[in-house]
Amino acid sequence: MKHLVEIKTGSTELFRGEFLHAFRDTVELPNGRSASREYVRHPGAVMIVPIVENVDGGWQLVMERQFRYPVGQVVVEFPAGKVDPGEESLDCAKRELREETGYFATSWGFAGTLHPVVSYSTERIDIWFARGLTLGEQDLDEGELVDVFTATPAQLLEWCRNGTVTDAKTLIAALWLQNLVAGTWSLEWLGG
Amino acid sequence: MKHLVEIKTGSTELFRGEFLHAFRDTVELPNGRSASREYVRHPGAVMIVPIVENVDGGWQLVMERQFRYPVGQVVVEFPAGKVDPGEESLDCAKRELREETGYFATSWGFAGTLHPVVSYSTERIDIWFARGLTLGEQDLDEGELVDVFTATPAQLLEWCRNGTVTDAKTLIAALWLQNLVAGTWSLEWLGG
Repeated sequence: MKHLVEIKTGSTELFRGEFLHAFRDTVELPNGRSASREYVRHPGAVMIVPIVENVDGGWQLVMERQFRYPVGQVVVEFPAGKVDPGEESLDCAKRELREETGYFATSWGFAGTLHPVVSYSTERIDIWFARGLTLGEQDLDEGELVDVFTATPAQLLEWCRNGTVTDAKTLIAALWLQNLVAGTWSLEWLGG
Repeated sequence: MKHLVEIKTGSTELFRGEFLHAFRDTVELPNGRSASREYVRHPGAVMIVPIVENVDGGWQLVMERQFRYPVGQVVVEFPAGKVDPGEESLDCAKRELREETGYFATSWGFAGTLHPVVSYSTERIDIWFARGLTLGEQDLDEGELVDVFTATPAQLLEWCRNGTVTDAKTLIAALWLQNLVAGTWSLEWLGG
């Protein structure tokens, strides 16, 4: 792949906001030319797919409705949040699940990492599945208003098909869920 | 959903780069408090999932390997690109398919829209499937270096499972492909 790799030759901070932190780097292309690359530096995030098991073995997924200002819509999504400085991915997943939904989980499965926007953000989102849920109390950040509800995997997949779900991370969780339910993919579950 | 909606009360341009265009808006929350929201304004984009049909009816997908500087990796992904001012989504899909891969398609199917980052970008990506491909010539932008290759849906799904594919839009294309191949989801195909 060496014929594709770009080498950093310089970097300028474009802007540091309360949340957005943007840079413009200059790079040397494999063909020797130079180019500039503008992007947002992001601390990384986690998504949690919380599964409540029915007595019949069926699954209920814990989901959220939240107004997302940049897209001007109430968005159906799985719980997610930014990693704090020095925080481990699984610790972040446990914290975000508790804060946003009030749930604690006894069993966790790591499904992988996704990059939401490879063209202009460093963000990576670790995908965690959570089972063995018990309910405590929500503890939302100031200004974070979230409706928590449950849906079956079949409902979620129908919402992905018909355009109700447009959030990228949640669509990707649906790919994992479809294959976990079918038994074509599996996760290693960690207790604790 | 009215109890979740945020109302814009002000807007400041944070930064206008060659590519990134960022804002900080102030909003009134449903509980009457105010908050600020920082985000990138994006013109919107398309992804194309190009399908070559084998004589046996099997599918080969036209994919790309491209170095994506913000994530520092060669990324396996489907062709995609930003919508030009005033350009229709399907026209953009046709243009990007031709420029990036050299292919023309006779049949197009619209699968829906995804939002890659609902928390800090207005970006939406329209998902187009393309069939009836004939090969012309690549016409890449200056500084755009792309390897084009083909893979089967089964290979793509394995790469999604094992972490080879981390690009969000491409993982979402895999959800659609899995269901199209299985016949559980379908598309309306437009000729032209």
